Amino acid sequence: MNTPRTDARRHHDPDVRGFASDNYAGAHPEVLAALSLANGGHQVAYGEDAYTDNLQRIIRSHFGATAEAFPVFNGTGANVVALQAVTDRWGAVICAESAHINVDECGAPERVGGLKLLTVATPDGKLTPELIDRQAYGWDDEHRAMPQVVSITQSTELGTLYTPDEIRAICEHAHARGMKVHLDGSRIANAAASLNVPMRTFTNAVGVDILSLGGTKNGALFGEAVVVINQDAVRHMKHLRKLSMQLASKMRFVSVQLEALLARDLWLRNARHSNEMAQRLAEGVRAVHGVEILHEVQSNAVFARLPHDVSERLQKRFRFYFWDEAAGDVRWMCAYDTTEEDVDAFVAALKEEMAR
Amino acid sequence: MNTPRTDARRHHDPDVRGFASDNYAGAHPEVLAALSLANGGHQVAYGEDAYTDNLQRIIRSHFGATAEAFPVFNGTGANVVALQAVTDRWGAVICAESAHINVDECGAPERVGGLKLLTVATPDGKLTPELIDRQAYGWDDEHRAMPQVVSITQSTELGTLYTPDEIRAICEHAHARGMKVHLDGSRIANAAASLNVPMRTFTNAVGVDILSLGGTKNGALFGEAVVVINQDAVRHMKHLRKLSMQLASKMRFVSVQLEALLARDLWLRNARHSNEMAQRLAEGVRAVHGVEILHEVQSNAVFARLPHDVSERLQKRFRFYFWDEAAGDVRWMCAYDTTEEDVDAFVAALKEEMAR
Amino acid sequence: MNTPRTDARRHHDPDVRGFASDNYAGAHPEVLAALSLANGGHQVAYGEDAYTDNLQRIIRSHFGATAEAFPVFNGTGANVVALQAVTDRWGAVICAESAHINVDECGAPERVGGLKLLTVATPDGKLTPELIDRQAYGWDDEHRAMPQVVSITQSTELGTLYTPDEIRAICEHAHARGMKVHLDGSRIANAAASLNVPMRTFTNAVGVDILSLGGTKNGALFGEAVVVINQDAVRHMKHLRKLSMQLASKMRFVSVQLEALLARDLWLRNARHSNEMAQRLAEGVRAVHGVEILHEVQSNAVFARLPHDVSERLQKRFRFYFWDEAAGDVRWMCAYDTTEEDVDAFVAALKEEMAR
Amino acid sequence: MNTPRTDARRHHDPDVRGFASDNYAGAHPEVLAALSLANGGHQVAYGEDAYTDNLQRIIRSHFGATAEAFPVFNGTGANVVALQAVTDRWGAVICAESAHINVDECGAPERVGGLKLLTVATPDGKLTPELIDRQAYGWDDEHRAMPQVVSITQSTELGTLYTPDEIRAICEHAHARGMKVHLDGSRIANAAASLNVPMRTFTNAVGVDILSLGGTKNGALFGEAVVVINQDAVRHMKHLRKLSMQLASKMRFVSVQLEALLARDLWLRNARHSNEMAQRLAEGVRAVHGVEILHEVQSNAVFARLPHDVSERLQKRFRFYFWDEAAGDVRWMCAYDTTEEDVDAFVAALKEEMAR
Repeated sequence: MNTPRTDARRHHDPDVRGFASDNYAGAHPEVLAALSLANGGHQVAYGEDAYTDNLQRIIRSHFGATAEAFPVFNGTGANVVALQAVTDRWGAVICAESAHINVDECGAPERVGGLKLLTVATPDGKLTPELIDRQAYGWDDEHRAMPQVVSITQSTELGTLYTPDEIRAICEHAHARGMKVHLDGSRIANAAASLNVPMRTFTNAVGVDILSLGGTKNGALFGEAVVVINQDAVRHMKHLRKLSMQLASKMRFVSVQLEALLARDLWLRNARHSNEMAQRLAEGVRAVHGVEILHEVQSNAVFARLPHDVSERLQKRFRFYFWDEAAGDVRWMCAYDTTEEDVDAFVAALKEEMAR
Repeated sequence: MNTPRTDARRHHDPDVRGFASDNYAGAHPEVLAALSLANGGHQVAYGEDAYTDNLQRIIRSHFGATAEAFPVFNGTGANVVALQAVTDRWGAVICAESAHINVDECGAPERVGGLKLLTVATPDGKLTPELIDRQAYGWDDEHRAMPQVVSITQSTELGTLYTPDEIRAICEHAHARGMKVHLDGSRIANAAASLNVPMRTFTNAVGVDILSLGGTKNGALFGEAVVVINQDAVRHMKHLRKLSMQLASKMRFVSVQLEALLARDLWLRNARHSNEMAQRLAEGVRAVHGVEILHEVQSNAVFARLPHDVSERLQKRFRFYFWDEAAGDVRWMCAYDTTEEDVDAFVAALKEEMAR
Repeated sequence: MNTPRTDARRHHDPDVRGFASDNYAGAHPEVLAALSLANGGHQVAYGEDAYTDNLQRIIRSHFGATAEAFPVFNGTGANVVALQAVTDRWGAVICAESAHINVDECGAPERVGGLKLLTVATPDGKLTPELIDRQAYGWDDEHRAMPQVVSITQSTELGTLYTPDEIRAICEHAHARGMKVHLDGSRIANAAASLNVPMRTFTNAVGVDILSLGGTKNGALFGEAVVVINQDAVRHMKHLRKLSMQLASKMRFVSVQLEALLARDLWLRNARHSNEMAQRLAEGVRAVHGVEILHEVQSNAVFARLPHDVSERLQKRFRFYFWDEAAGDVRWMCAYDTTEEDVDAFVAALKEEMAR
Repeated sequence: MNTPRTDARRHHDPDVRGFASDNYAGAHPEVLAALSLANGGHQVAYGEDAYTDNLQRIIRSHFGATAEAFPVFNGTGANVVALQAVTDRWGAVICAESAHINVDECGAPERVGGLKLLTVATPDGKLTPELIDRQAYGWDDEHRAMPQVVSITQSTELGTLYTPDEIRAICEHAHARGMKVHLDGSRIANAAASLNVPMRTFTNAVGVDILSLGGTKNGALFGEAVVVINQDAVRHMKHLRKLSMQLASKMRFVSVQLEALLARDLWLRNARHSNEMAQRLAEGVRAVHGVEILHEVQSNAVFARLPHDVSERLQKRFRFYFWDEAAGDVRWMCAYDTTEEDVDAFVAALKEEMAR
């Protein structure tokens, strides 16, 4: 893009990429371009603008006629607003021990929402009706925080996926016990791309009540949305978003990014690409003796176990994180901008370091 | 700007502007342009990127060698993170009754931070040592939330300004009583422009401990920063920002906007312009018989009292808000993109409606 | 009372009394005696005991067929449980600036309940529909904490009283605006005694939805109750009490104290006596030149203004508190155990100190 | 006791006892008697009374020269005040999954204190340095709630005990990682009695920083205390207790109960007796074929597994609770007032029901 005048300077090398996180990537050029469209002139602040209005139409096309989007700033914000919306002051959230809300949000659900998390250990980041039942009891017991919502992540923090039927079973199970279902869709696009179904197939079509729709990891600069599907389950979402400090004044700039992603197929193109890069990476890695792929590679994450010293040498060449340093487990994430060359170079480097 | 391909569409008329809020304006083109610079390649998420690093240098140039910026999403977030940083669980915040934290944040300080606000009625939105003393007592009384910080707004919610000496007096008064001083600088640029001094003159130079630095109203798409000046007063700011759900993953896009504003003088040009437009507007209005200017016009806000029906007719032509509908008080805000023509057309319309 | 064996010792002089607070008094002997009745054997913990069950019958006799009591530990607990019960996460409480919830609970409503208090300055601690309207607006504005309940205190923190008609007007006003009414009845017995009406006359009969029923100041060792009158306004009170840490395990010992007070007329005898002592005190004081009674003496409190040095000398002889030390205002409280001799000795001492 | 006049009535049979909870028992007669001693005359409210002052001396005799007691109402209150005292806003608590704070407080630690609990599954309710390490990491990672305190329960919720050396190892481990140690001593007396050591031996002597000292289960009507041992670890405890709604106005009545228990040996007599009854019960049960004792019986609790229908029939004769109904696990608690006859009758009944 031909850059107009600005006092800001470029401080980084735009050709360097790694495998640390899909949040390390920047914004997709089409998303960036959309910002200019929404700029200029005055638009009502705090969500009464034309872009947020138009976004509702797009969201309904994805999530059905009852769906309503509440744009927010980030994923933690989306989750905590959504979970507050479907719980009372005495409510609790059943979730996997590995859920982002439990391990990666510095206690925001507890501190901001006053939410009690009832966690369940899982082999692969996925809840099942049976696993839910380990925490789903005691609704009449005032000593116990009342289970009011089941929160699942799709795709999960371990890169695995629920099938639509698995989510349907969870929703039926939860609803039969008076609980709602929240889906943390920080990487929902990757899930839809991998399952090769519309997002609705594993959300509104199977009973999900409310979800966190991710934009940032899908190519936005920032911006997510709480999507309410079951309108009867919530009240005064706008107040809840505001008091949770997730209300953007110039909301048009959140909404137009989501429009750029969701109006046609950019969301899907980005997700498909990052998934394919993860498959290419997994394939390459499988050919390397001594490196074990840990979970089924179903989205844009590859978890692997390899010698600790190899990881450390490799980290000097490509940025990525240990997942469980003691065990030697690492996580390699692909993004919408990961290239085949990136993957091949990484696999080659891995081979080299393993061979040393 | 020549717009690249995007699936998003333009949904608004970029030539329409009003006087409702400086948040109704979009982003300054130079800020928008800066986003492209920061884009491309991978940068460490959550603030370890080159743009956030560089921002520190810029912030120190404005607020002194001890200053450190913690970029956040919005003004409420900046305020609540900053106030939590300088209070204990039992702490209270002394502020003007008209403070944004008291009237416009849906209780976020109370609900997210568990903060007790001790409010004082003021004639013009400004605290003084004497007014502070109406709430500054009882530190040893466990029945009373302990006053630990005085929060002032510069420029105030009523468009008025503190002189540097007034803020110095407040800081000395507060510090002598063991309290810190927080400055809500949502419109700090307008204050500096109007006082014709650097921002440091009424912040670090006179004893302010921590401040909320506004970017959005100054021409950003979104983005503010908590600026810590007194490092001894705070601990673990990063944890506090995260648990308050104000941590941006792709932080480079917040930081580069603040760089575009603050690296040279865009912040000042924008603020000066909106202030000048407010002066022009006030001048025009003063010539209209039957309309009373309510507060001294010192920044980019004009408060006025006029017949209610006139306001209602005028609102059909230009968007603006009632401030106190019962009293007939209105608020007219100028933005960085308000033009002389906008102001003149508005004053002409006001005259017409007054004459009907 | 003939004291059975115990390893505890008496550490105080049971003949010394002052005018500092009705909380300085001990327990009425009839209340203490009731504890023995409830003792012995096993009773279900946490409120499923026979004493708590029986208490419901007594509460209904006072507050009507829909009334239900939830015994708690203390007044702050009663208030915060009650106010949470009638507010959403986004709710606000309209109250007098002088309300106990605002000035004497160390921010517990904000910190424990996440409640925003919208305060109104009053001349005498009493709200009116007009005063309520200063804060009763903006229900649709997400930037504003939503006014959902009006909280009044009877008798007030200034010793004044609402007539039943005044409370009826407040309830009608609040209900017409979709708000509930909470009554902080920490000294509700004094109010009833002074008005010479049953407690129901100014609570359920005029529209109060929920109240905090005081036991401690009325002669209990400890123990209050949240009394729900409008059952439609609340849900899951037991969970709310538990999460607010106000659930007594051996609840029989709270309930039997309230039974001792409320089953017949001990509550009224105690309140009448303390009110009469306050009248006797006020009468005596009025005869002392140079001492001004500040508010109408309608319950068991006397507020007075007198020379600061006189107060200080007097405090060496009888314990009491300054109310507004700068102004020279003091508060003298009478308790159920204050004697005519106590009052007369105090007035004599006041005369002496004024004459010095 | 010869009961003085009171309007309260006896509503229960003081000769009926069960095995449901040590909270089902009433107050020990010596504790009840102590209340009369503290009654009469005026004493400063909110803890400035002679009984609370004297209590400090007693507490120091048990927990060392630095110990200070803050009487509170109940166990949840003691735990949440204590844990807030040793954590920052971003702090987390490492505890056993079975800890009372995690499963029996309706989320009060999360909701009132904003505390994140990092739980660890344990075989017997006891943490070890190794188990602690499953959660003790990530202090520099702002995405993770910061582990700041380890909370252990003595005796545990499963009736098991830590040896003094085990607690010492935990304290050393925690302190080496910058964490404090909290001990939930709801049944600390039972632990001391069973270990046959003073309470100090497994608290201040081995490094515990702060503890919740139980009174209620040990024979009080109500009343516990937060005992601070490490004064450097805490600040403004009184404010923290007040804002947590745990400040008793007539505190003398809490303190004198703790005096009655702790001044000489009533606490120990009560605890020894209930422990002995549990041993007698366990012995009797072991002789019954088909009933399995589940954990080592080390205090006043007996956990057993037996056929579900037997439990149900037995519950019609003696009150007790299922612990894990699906598994057929029950909990039988002995109290200070459980008699040998109670135990023998219960064992006989168990035999009868097993034989049917």
